[in-house]
Amino acid sequence: MASQNDLATVNAARKLAVLLQNGDRRALARAITVAESSLPADQVKAEALLAAVLPRTGGAIRIGISGAPGVGKSTFIEAFGQLLTVSGKRVAVFAIDPSSRRSGGSILGDKTRMEKLTRDPNAFIRPSPAGSTLGGVARRTRESMLLAEAAGFDVVLVETVGVGQSETAVADMTDLFVLLASPGGGDDLQGIKRGVMELADLLLVTKADGDLLPAALRAAANYQMAFHLMRPKHVGLQPKVLTVSAIEGAGIGAAWDEMTAIHAALAADNRLTRLRAEQARRWFWGEVQAVVSEAILSNANLAAEASALERAVSDGAATPYGAARSLLAAILPALRQ
Amino acid sequence: MASQNDLATVNAARKLAVLLQNGDRRALARAITVAESSLPADQVKAEALLAAVLPRTGGAIRIGISGAPGVGKSTFIEAFGQLLTVSGKRVAVFAIDPSSRRSGGSILGDKTRMEKLTRDPNAFIRPSPAGSTLGGVARRTRESMLLAEAAGFDVVLVETVGVGQSETAVADMTDLFVLLASPGGGDDLQGIKRGVMELADLLLVTKADGDLLPAALRAAANYQMAFHLMRPKHVGLQPKVLTVSAIEGAGIGAAWDEMTAIHAALAADNRLTRLRAEQARRWFWGEVQAVVSEAILSNANLAAEASALERAVSDGAATPYGAARSLLAAILPALRQ
Repeated sequence: MASQNDLATVNAARKLAVLLQNGDRRALARAITVAESSLPADQVKAEALLAAVLPRTGGAIRIGISGAPGVGKSTFIEAFGQLLTVSGKRVAVFAIDPSSRRSGGSILGDKTRMEKLTRDPNAFIRPSPAGSTLGGVARRTRESMLLAEAAGFDVVLVETVGVGQSETAVADMTDLFVLLASPGGGDDLQGIKRGVMELADLLLVTKADGDLLPAALRAAANYQMAFHLMRPKHVGLQPKVLTVSAIEGAGIGAAWDEMTAIHAALAADNRLTRLRAEQARRWFWGEVQAVVSEAILSNANLAAEASALERAVSDGAATPYGAARSLLAAILPALRQ
Repeated sequence: MASQNDLATVNAARKLAVLLQNGDRRALARAITVAESSLPADQVKAEALLAAVLPRTGGAIRIGISGAPGVGKSTFIEAFGQLLTVSGKRVAVFAIDPSSRRSGGSILGDKTRMEKLTRDPNAFIRPSPAGSTLGGVARRTRESMLLAEAAGFDVVLVETVGVGQSETAVADMTDLFVLLASPGGGDDLQGIKRGVMELADLLLVTKADGDLLPAALRAAANYQMAFHLMRPKHVGLQPKVLTVSAIEGAGIGAAWDEMTAIHAALAADNRLTRLRAEQARRWFWGEVQAVVSEAILSNANLAAEASALERAVSDGAATPYGAARSLLAAILPALRQ
């Protein structure tokens, strides 16, 4: 039974949903703020809002973009985003950065790095939400992505600097994953974290201009060779390696053409539909486990018992299974009843 | 409060623990059967047994071994195991194979493939437990590994054929991960699943004899190059690539020397201790989530609701977060109380 307050909240959410679906950027910003809020009232509002707009979501091409610090992600997104908006597309840019709370939100935070795109009426840029855990940040970003789609954005870019497992999180919420790499020698791949190459549908070697052009071409050849040594992520879709120069604007259009080609290929035989459905299923079970863990840790007694058991387990004083059983002894009866 | 039955069970477990710690192989076999059983009484016994022997565990060098079907895992383990037992070591061999129920336990099941090792008094070979999920199989194997250590085994080999994410599960319960690969051309790595190379501490190219020797040497060079293109798993420990011939017994001793060298390097600066503690912590939280999920699915109402919600989510009719909240609405009050 919803309370009077809840009913008022739900009505407010419906009003916001209407503004959102009319493409109002301010409404989108407000909606995302609500989704990012941890206030119980806002959570009720966010759920009502998402439920209301859900039928209008899924229309964007979802692109993950990653690369080590200094590779030129912001410069690329500034140029890439403008290429899209000039052609009439509406672009939303989000960031996954679990460390943003500590770092003060370096990623996308310094909007001057995307001066023009920030002022572009067809672009919407949102820094990473402050979230202690990757799971928390990723959850909010997934919801923001749905809200942007409901607001009629055609392209959603999710950027990550690659803290912890954030590339995997981004690859698991997008249709295709674009990896940026700097020009360099043959050992270049050592600059890419283990397992990340395998997530990429497309690799772009940046700074392919001036003195660095030869090095960029060498690096591109090395990366292409590395891809040949790996199984392709999608059968029949060998990841391409292209060079780009954000300064000269070279290769950006070709990169977009390749992204749309991959997207079309995945959509053609329903792989895109299956991919998104599988992502949603994993997201669901991830949410189930997240909410359970949060609930355990939000209970003072269970939280204390959990950390004591965790210590005992890592010290070899208790078996993980036995410890888990002890922790859950208090929970299971409630589930089994 | 334990019941009379539980007390009797615990006493039986203690008796079994004593036999186990005297190195009785039959006691080990019985203990593992108890650990693999899903009968409530056996679970009580298994927990008491593990608690009793836990102080005596951790003494073995834990080695994961993987490789595609046909690479010659069983032949290698037969030769490798005998090399160890001849030098007075006691070797336990387990298998992680989530598909063993379907396939009838092909992996290690056909013991004639390890005829000599099976009859070796210093070896203990156990096929993969029949378990529907990787998590279930891995859980039992981790416990069997602890039991074998308590029984005084010096080396524990955990083999996997690489179904689903089983290599990751094996790498997460062992000290080092050995990958076997067949001789072949430059595209050889395409036979290795994405992400698996990154788990390896050592790669062995098998069948390095007769006609295949040149191909094996070529393959070894290609794999070594691929490793150079990746970040090493452990700082300062670049994975080596060696060739072995189980038939001629060539390279097996060198492979063991490299494994002990890696193990010593990890032990020297406490990395091994930290690795095992971290594995235990992850195992603990994995167990917490596993038991919670099992509890949800063992409750008819919750199970039905869960699958309906999962369908709604993958059809895009519900948001994962909202669906998870609905599923857990019944559970949370119990946790929060």
